[in-house]
Amino acid sequence: MSVEALEEILHPQSVAVVGASANTRSWGYSYTHHLIEYGFRGKIYPVNPNHPEILGIKTYSSLKDVPGTVDYVISCIPAGDVPKMLTECVQKQVKVVHLYTARFSETGRRDAAELERAVLGQARKAGIRLIGPNCMGVYHPKHGLSFGYDLAKEPGPVGMLSQTGGGASGFVRQAARRGIRFSKVISYGNALDLNECDYLEYFAWDPETSVIVIYIEGPRDGRKFFDMLRRVALQKPVIIVKGGRGEAGTRSTASHTASLAGSMSAWEALVAQTGAVPAVNLDEVADLAISFCLLPPLKGPRVGIAGGGGGPSVLSADECEEAGLEIVPLPAEIRHELKDRGVEIWDWIGNPVDASIIGGFGVDILDMLRLMALNENFDLLIGLINESVMLTLSLQDGVSERLKMTVEGYRRLKEEKLKPLLAVIGDDCSGSDEYGDWSGRLISDVRTNLIAAGIPFYPTIGRAANAARKVLDYYMHKDTGTG
Amino acid sequence: MSVEALEEILHPQSVAVVGASANTRSWGYSYTHHLIEYGFRGKIYPVNPNHPEILGIKTYSSLKDVPGTVDYVISCIPAGDVPKMLTECVQKQVKVVHLYTARFSETGRRDAAELERAVLGQARKAGIRLIGPNCMGVYHPKHGLSFGYDLAKEPGPVGMLSQTGGGASGFVRQAARRGIRFSKVISYGNALDLNECDYLEYFAWDPETSVIVIYIEGPRDGRKFFDMLRRVALQKPVIIVKGGRGEAGTRSTASHTASLAGSMSAWEALVAQTGAVPAVNLDEVADLAISFCLLPPLKGPRVGIAGGGGGPSVLSADECEEAGLEIVPLPAEIRHELKDRGVEIWDWIGNPVDASIIGGFGVDILDMLRLMALNENFDLLIGLINESVMLTLSLQDGVSERLKMTVEGYRRLKEEKLKPLLAVIGDDCSGSDEYGDWSGRLISDVRTNLIAAGIPFYPTIGRAANAARKVLDYYMHKDTGTG
Repeated sequence: MSVEALEEILHPQSVAVVGASANTRSWGYSYTHHLIEYGFRGKIYPVNPNHPEILGIKTYSSLKDVPGTVDYVISCIPAGDVPKMLTECVQKQVKVVHLYTARFSETGRRDAAELERAVLGQARKAGIRLIGPNCMGVYHPKHGLSFGYDLAKEPGPVGMLSQTGGGASGFVRQAARRGIRFSKVISYGNALDLNECDYLEYFAWDPETSVIVIYIEGPRDGRKFFDMLRRVALQKPVIIVKGGRGEAGTRSTASHTASLAGSMSAWEALVAQTGAVPAVNLDEVADLAISFCLLPPLKGPRVGIAGGGGGPSVLSADECEEAGLEIVPLPAEIRHELKDRGVEIWDWIGNPVDASIIGGFGVDILDMLRLMALNENFDLLIGLINESVMLTLSLQDGVSERLKMTVEGYRRLKEEKLKPLLAVIGDDCSGSDEYGDWSGRLISDVRTNLIAAGIPFYPTIGRAANAARKVLDYYMHKDTGTG
Repeated sequence: MSVEALEEILHPQSVAVVGASANTRSWGYSYTHHLIEYGFRGKIYPVNPNHPEILGIKTYSSLKDVPGTVDYVISCIPAGDVPKMLTECVQKQVKVVHLYTARFSETGRRDAAELERAVLGQARKAGIRLIGPNCMGVYHPKHGLSFGYDLAKEPGPVGMLSQTGGGASGFVRQAARRGIRFSKVISYGNALDLNECDYLEYFAWDPETSVIVIYIEGPRDGRKFFDMLRRVALQKPVIIVKGGRGEAGTRSTASHTASLAGSMSAWEALVAQTGAVPAVNLDEVADLAISFCLLPPLKGPRVGIAGGGGGPSVLSADECEEAGLEIVPLPAEIRHELKDRGVEIWDWIGNPVDASIIGGFGVDILDMLRLMALNENFDLLIGLINESVMLTLSLQDGVSERLKMTVEGYRRLKEEKLKPLLAVIGDDCSGSDEYGDWSGRLISDVRTNLIAAGIPFYPTIGRAANAARKVLDYYMHKDTGTG
């Protein structure tokens, strides 16, 4: 399908929720609620024979009772009722039906698979496109479409096509806490009609999308998909996570989206050729998405690290090297500058900069980060914030202020645009009552301020380093133009 | 040194803090504070020529002015003043000096290294043992010794010897949020006198320690250390993380604890032979420690997974397989039992159990976990709690109650002692202000309840699976007795 046609489908002027419900635990209720709550400006038509109104909106007994045409239908009715509804869709000149409705081929049952084929035949004949079945559909906050209660209302630059709906909404939520926002997320389940290629082509074209995320279990059209992926990855970063990599996962994809997963080694080789960025889970996808959104293109692997103390500082070097980054020794120019500035321990400071040794010598972590940012031997910088908290934890009252100053320093450094800057601020499974939540509060404030400053943060140095290396690989591949 | 002698050293009846201070930002203040705050029952002698009292305790001008003998000295004075203090230690029959004092050989400077050697010679001659220098010393909550303001006051079964002090206190804090408590933690820095072998032998003997954690940069006596490690690992689980694995990390260990890190591949081979459990960072150490503390010995790799929905459920299977666990298909007996109970989708449910498909069919995640716990095809179970939150997030009010019931179900299942049970409850970088913190609060409650129930939890399925596999490897190695 053409990107223009899909663009039109994603901007409906009227939406009917067939199977709308007053039961707050039902999806028929939720989808109606979301249209109102997310500010959909077109016409909303709940359809249910048993209610005169739902959520204060006039409700129709059947689709054919709705006045005028309907662009977009959200189907929350049982699978067996879909054929009859599709007949009514023809009358209402419906362009697309999102089949939230599930229990088709993914059940593994023959009758359900036959019904699915019949539904496709009927839709094709009528010229109605299908999203799904067995999916959450479209989250398009700018246009007032959503599939979750607490997804962000502001749009952003990440577009996602996903064969998991729960995973997609979980990801939108998790990513939001890192400062990531979305243009459109399309959960497309069994990909009966519109498939991964239609969506990928759309996101490649979509001017509102600059980073593309894919969760896929099995492409419906593998050859076309990889050809397209190769072209698209040269235009925009594409992060791809494959569900069903092993034996058990493959069994699960069959019962999840009726996808046939193939050989994983072949898959990996194909993805590597395209220049798309592979990830193993949605946490890693979030790390990569935030990196692509907020960092300038990385130019090399040489990293300057500062802010950790003692052992964690040593381990940060180990983990960066193991992720494929280079930790260059602190350059002579910087040591001399420190010496000239009268820093007594100028010959002891290294890279990583050990925060536990530099206190009281007239130089701090921010100074060191800035010196490395100005030096040509570094391609990127990683600042460890959590470790500083640990080191100053004896001063509970002062910590909050010092952390604020740290983030403010990061913000200023970032604005100088000298080098890409990544921040690490740990989770440490905070949130249990084992300790009061003052430290959780502090971490929360730091994160909020980092998001406001547009600085990407990661829960561990290992995850920051992994993301940096993969982002670098992406730009290196793109530069060779071999995609 | 004999374990009995070290046991005595770790149970002092009197402690002097030399270099005690009224400056709340100093370690001389902190150590004095900790003795009071953590309930040390022996005599506390702050030593400082400029204050009549510190924190309400009579303070002495010098060590020799202290009445009677002193068992244990915490040195917070500059390195250059240590020789003079040691002379006074002889008079006071001091058994051990913990040299928090740093800036010895780790500075890389010749004069500092010479001073360090002189200090060792002096202590040896006087029969005084040294912990450190350049370290935080001893956290022994049961005896009232601590090196941090907010470390747990209750003791527990984990003993730790660590060449990082900041890392050790960070770890104690982080581990506490997972429900882990400690017998003793010994931060020993440069290991000038007492070294890794003394401490390891002690923890092997110590009846209060059942799991041993080691952070080490370079053993002072490698051959003895590995021989001992082999013996000890057959008695108690030993988790070991090496700082300074790569080029940069090795440079850093030199300036951190003056350790000489050797070839990493040789190290890995030696550790593998001992049966100790290697880890790459302190997050992984926490995963392993909580697993050894709370799980019974694992007997095999066959895992049953339940609670995830859709894509995350598929990915959970992938990540478990990639970590070396086996995800067996749902056994026929269980399917038949489901069929007999009238569960309509009995032939669709698999392993992992997809939470998004079983709602409304008279069977829930807890039922499924229990069926797998009763079945001989499973060696362990992993329950995904976070995913359930996602799936029910539309019902903000009901979620709290449902989560409470879930954890209560886990608790009952655990008490039946059918199979080892691990819980996954995500962090998702919660804690920024991007969303209100109601979900953070929920997660906090779940964690608190899991800790109370003695069920280990992990922030991701990948980390749970990795820990389970390594714990299994430990018991398999131990069973062969080849350690």
